[in-house]
Amino acid sequence: MVVMKATVIYGAGDVRVETVPDPKLHEPTDAVVRVLRSCICGSDLWPYGGKPAQAHGDRIGHEFLGVVEEVGAAVSGLKPGDVVVAPFVWADNTCDFCREGLQTSCRHGGLWGSSDVDGGQGEAVRVPQADGTLVKLPVGEDSALLPSLLTLSDVFPTGHHCAVTAGVGPRTTVAVIGDGAVGLCAVLAAKRLGAERIILMGRHTARTDLGRAFGATDVVAERGAEGVERVRELTGGDGTHTVLECVGLAEAVQTAFGVVRSGGTVSRVGAPQYTEVPMDFDVFMNNITLTGGVAPARAYIEELLPDILEGRVEPGRVFDRTIGLDDVATGYRAMADRQALKVLIRP
Amino acid sequence: MVVMKATVIYGAGDVRVETVPDPKLHEPTDAVVRVLRSCICGSDLWPYGGKPAQAHGDRIGHEFLGVVEEVGAAVSGLKPGDVVVAPFVWADNTCDFCREGLQTSCRHGGLWGSSDVDGGQGEAVRVPQADGTLVKLPVGEDSALLPSLLTLSDVFPTGHHCAVTAGVGPRTTVAVIGDGAVGLCAVLAAKRLGAERIILMGRHTARTDLGRAFGATDVVAERGAEGVERVRELTGGDGTHTVLECVGLAEAVQTAFGVVRSGGTVSRVGAPQYTEVPMDFDVFMNNITLTGGVAPARAYIEELLPDILEGRVEPGRVFDRTIGLDDVATGYRAMADRQALKVLIRP
Repeated sequence: MVVMKATVIYGAGDVRVETVPDPKLHEPTDAVVRVLRSCICGSDLWPYGGKPAQAHGDRIGHEFLGVVEEVGAAVSGLKPGDVVVAPFVWADNTCDFCREGLQTSCRHGGLWGSSDVDGGQGEAVRVPQADGTLVKLPVGEDSALLPSLLTLSDVFPTGHHCAVTAGVGPRTTVAVIGDGAVGLCAVLAAKRLGAERIILMGRHTARTDLGRAFGATDVVAERGAEGVERVRELTGGDGTHTVLECVGLAEAVQTAFGVVRSGGTVSRVGAPQYTEVPMDFDVFMNNITLTGGVAPARAYIEELLPDILEGRVEPGRVFDRTIGLDDVATGYRAMADRQALKVLIRP
Repeated sequence: MVVMKATVIYGAGDVRVETVPDPKLHEPTDAVVRVLRSCICGSDLWPYGGKPAQAHGDRIGHEFLGVVEEVGAAVSGLKPGDVVVAPFVWADNTCDFCREGLQTSCRHGGLWGSSDVDGGQGEAVRVPQADGTLVKLPVGEDSALLPSLLTLSDVFPTGHHCAVTAGVGPRTTVAVIGDGAVGLCAVLAAKRLGAERIILMGRHTARTDLGRAFGATDVVAERGAEGVERVRELTGGDGTHTVLECVGLAEAVQTAFGVVRSGGTVSRVGAPQYTEVPMDFDVFMNNITLTGGVAPARAYIEELLPDILEGRVEPGRVFDRTIGLDDVATGYRAMADRQALKVLIRP
């Protein structure tokens, strides 16, 4: 691999696969990882939908697993040949924020595809802070578990973060807003945390069917005021203890406030496409908490991994299409057109 | 007392003391309480500042303590002569919400001064759900502790609710926004909960001096971006773990987001004078929680009472002026003009 291929975005609707410089070790804490599987995220669709056109493309993609090819002199926990998964934010995993489980605020971390860091949708990636960032997976390069293990990069921990910050547990009722991959993983996470009642708000039958398989007890297809009314009906008028907002639009947050029970919690993990949250006086009078944020996936990987390895959960079912790297533009289009739920890429 | 006097608001700047019908028992769960002390709340200043003029006045006031005069047939825990304090929302204290400590959402509760329920700024009050609402105080009618005990109606539990929901504890740093009576009580509550660093944001020296006496370790007089910068400086750039928003304006919430540490919590107890909260992408990326709401004062009275009785805290120091009921209009004006911090009323 003298010159590798990687995905580059030039603006809305304009995603290309191009040759780019091969990743090399820059820092002694780096590793180079050959990508086995990558994928397209719902959040990649925001720039795909609206990024202004530009002359120079930006690298994109933040979910990948692969094989360690090379490690820097300061990397002690990894060696060439290790199969590893990368969370969607890289981090040293040792600073005070990381020790608190907030690796997304790491003092020495950052985002994939920014400045001189590779994106995940390519053939290989230079991984900064490799010891802190990467998690070894006890599987081979041809494991059938790779799709589910790949969800540890983002969507499964993101759904889990949403459920954890909302306070989901055995005695909580849950409403999940959004039937995308994150919403479905939030259903799975809520079920895993013991929730008995999980109402999934979504209207794509193929997706809500998977939601039922993941643990949703009810599906509400209606949106807006009608959807709120329907969830209220299902809960004796009270709403649910927790609401997992997995969309990222102001309307979804408004729906969340509409269906949450007094004293309850709305957690948002949909990358917000708004800068103001409508919050009427009732939100205050009802003591509603708004929590969540970008998920520190790294904090949760060790906890979620055994459930995948031992077959108790199968979050990889969110992938309903697999493509080669050369077809990445087709994959983006399919997700944007709702023809595909989540697209897996085999470079 | 054939016909009693009570405070009535007709619109912005128009507060009067009028004769109104004496309270009588309506329901077997009612009590009638003769008011010993009442007061004016910062939240009373919102209608005093902006309520449209109307022909018929509305009763006002929601903080009072007094002596039980009469109880309904179904009231078992109270008898005439008992000295009692009322939280600022009445509640049965037995429904599911009350049992969860959310008496402000009681299924059979409500607000003082609404429909046929008396306001607190008068000579007497019919108290619905008396067994659930009122808390007996082991003091006489002439106790020197009455001012501090009166704060159990609202401002002390409201400051406490703010600190509790924000998660204040021994290892948290705290910023308190607002040097009104609630902000000062939030300082007192944070200190009581063990916070070591409490930064009070306020610019009225007499008030911030009381804040220091209540436990504030630092005072920041600057507002807006300058205030944010100053708090950041004081915390090595990181901001505080918790922020107690005790104002109720969108600007205060914005300041709160500016000074909170990543992974931290903003709790708001200032009655919101806004319907949208500015929330930029950083709030999401930094995993900031927004919590709080109207304080279920009833839930906290038993916990806070011993500290007052035994002299460990003296929240009644927020009262810097005492008036008779006939002077209530003067009291409102003094608070609105910031001539008084909080006005005590002796009917």
